[in-house]
Amino acid sequence: MAKARVTITLKKTIMDAQGQTVEKALHNLGYEGVGNLRIGKYIEMELNGAPATELPAQVDEMCRRLLANPIIEDFHVEIEE
Amino acid sequence: MAKARVTITLKKTIMDAQGQTVEKALHNLGYEGVGNLRIGKYIEMELNGAPATELPAQVDEMCRRLLANPIIEDFHVEIEE
Repeated sequence: MAKARVTITLKKTIMDAQGQTVEKALHNLGYEGVGNLRIGKYIEMELNGAPATELPAQVDEMCRRLLANPIIEDFHVEIEE
Repeated sequence: MAKARVTITLKKTIMDAQGQTVEKALHNLGYEGVGNLRIGKYIEMELNGAPATELPAQVDEMCRRLLANPIIEDFHVEIEE
């Protein structure tokens, strides 16, 4: 059984209002050194059945079809055997 | 300047309704091998000013004070120099 970890973030050119709000809150708590904070989604799943060589392409396809919105989001896939 | 990457997930003992829904949707799209899918948050930020040795403890503190809810969520911090 393999494990996949997917992180999905807004593209750099898209304003991340949620991230800006959290960054301001951290500044108010005294963490002045925090900058460029961005918030995204994290998805982890187990993968059974498919051959290991096909997994990266399969998870990539899942992201494009369902998990992410490729118009405004970037995604990054890590597979752990 | 260092970079921190934080992943926040519901504790294993807490039901993840959103994750279950997405897992079912993937099954319906033909990805039958997907199991135990869980959805969480991903936060990345730049860290300036503080000494590198203090960063892990500082980000850990941010998670406990603001970013995560330690009662129901686990978090994992990675620092990249």
